[in-house]
Amino acid sequence: MKKARVAVGGTVHDAFEYKGKVKLTDGRVFSEEEVEWLSPVEPQTVFALGLNYADHAKELSFSAPKEPLVFLKGPNTFIGHNAWTKRPDEVELMHYECELGVVIGKTAKNVKKKDAYQYVKGYTVSNDYAIRDYLENYYRPNLRVKNRDTCTPIGPWLVDRDDIEDPMNLPLRTIVNGEVVQEGSTKDMIFTVPDLIEYLSSFMTLNENDIILTGTPKGTAGVHAGDEVVTEIEGIGALKNNIISDKEFA
Amino acid sequence: MKKARVAVGGTVHDAFEYKGKVKLTDGRVFSEEEVEWLSPVEPQTVFALGLNYADHAKELSFSAPKEPLVFLKGPNTFIGHNAWTKRPDEVELMHYECELGVVIGKTAKNVKKKDAYQYVKGYTVSNDYAIRDYLENYYRPNLRVKNRDTCTPIGPWLVDRDDIEDPMNLPLRTIVNGEVVQEGSTKDMIFTVPDLIEYLSSFMTLNENDIILTGTPKGTAGVHAGDEVVTEIEGIGALKNNIISDKEFA
Repeated sequence: MKKARVAVGGTVHDAFEYKGKVKLTDGRVFSEEEVEWLSPVEPQTVFALGLNYADHAKELSFSAPKEPLVFLKGPNTFIGHNAWTKRPDEVELMHYECELGVVIGKTAKNVKKKDAYQYVKGYTVSNDYAIRDYLENYYRPNLRVKNRDTCTPIGPWLVDRDDIEDPMNLPLRTIVNGEVVQEGSTKDMIFTVPDLIEYLSSFMTLNENDIILTGTPKGTAGVHAGDEVVTEIEGIGALKNNIISDKEFA
Repeated sequence: MKKARVAVGGTVHDAFEYKGKVKLTDGRVFSEEEVEWLSPVEPQTVFALGLNYADHAKELSFSAPKEPLVFLKGPNTFIGHNAWTKRPDEVELMHYECELGVVIGKTAKNVKKKDAYQYVKGYTVSNDYAIRDYLENYYRPNLRVKNRDTCTPIGPWLVDRDDIEDPMNLPLRTIVNGEVVQEGSTKDMIFTVPDLIEYLSSFMTLNENDIILTGTPKGTAGVHAGDEVVTEIEGIGALKNNIISDKEFA
């Protein structure tokens, strides 16, 4: 099943996909354009991976990491499908990053790879925008690179784990203004979904609805005010997002 | 007023300080030892500062930073007053870090220093333990340094902003097994509370109950299973915490 969280007339509803439309749990059916999409999940903790596709690490002139490279994000960054991302006017490089989002289904501590999928609730699509003007700081990534308001579109759907035959073999792509600009497959991840759950749960507890953004393949590039950006993962969904200047939005 | 969140008989209550005791909002009064203390605040986003006291930066052989050095923490790390911190058996260096916690009172974006205190709800004490075995990684700090379960004691009290005359002139100290091992004053912060609120809110939105852990002065050192650790800030509170091996706790 594909689930969502949407607002209609200012009220938030759980919803699910029904014949290409959005059906609320109260039975009402709307088109995709008639609802306000929210992030399909409200995590306590948001993990994001860097350099988790070999081709992307190479593109940035890094060797493949020996352990997962993980940082945290704040909930201020999340927006839903069809929402606006405020691009700071003063930055030069704001890159899209199409990523598979893995949502945790229950408390996970010291989970082994072979059992890891039991702890997955489902999957979603994210666009983990990076502002590359600020790469250097003592701590990395600098909060100004990865923690801007509205800079993590998520959704549209949370797709049940059991509906995805092999999450490690999904084509994914980014389409900017109708043109495919990034293409890859989750099979090229350096650390797989079970690797990541084993690694993180080996030293901390993962909780229901925590989300892991699993990194992006090669082909990231800049976006600008006015762009329409779609990040898409086959079988999971197509997440549309529009870029606006942060000065216009205020 | 000094506020707290405590559990009595498995139920969570708001409470406040009353003649050296804990008074629940239903009127019942308990001694400090009769209640289970929880973090006095449930933040969405937890900010922590590195190298924000000049003497501590020098002790670690760093020059004073030119901008605030901020990283995020996950809620898995939080525990209350009198609770246990699980120290991983396999690590060599787990350091206490006494820190002033600043709790945000309302939505803050583009706040100027002169107005910053209007956005503060109050203050608390934290002990932002660091496991120094893992300093090197592409992202810093490595999650294994700062994101272990139970490794951020917080409390006991959230003290109203208006009860603290000058938050930038508070003596703070850490006491391990009865011995004072760390002493400093918030007046030695490199970036003050107003500096930090201006900085963070200049590029992202701060929300009510978000918390900023403002860094620690010099004198951090290791703790071991069996230690009793008190981090204390004058006028805010004394936060007690006991160290146990993570193997014993399981």
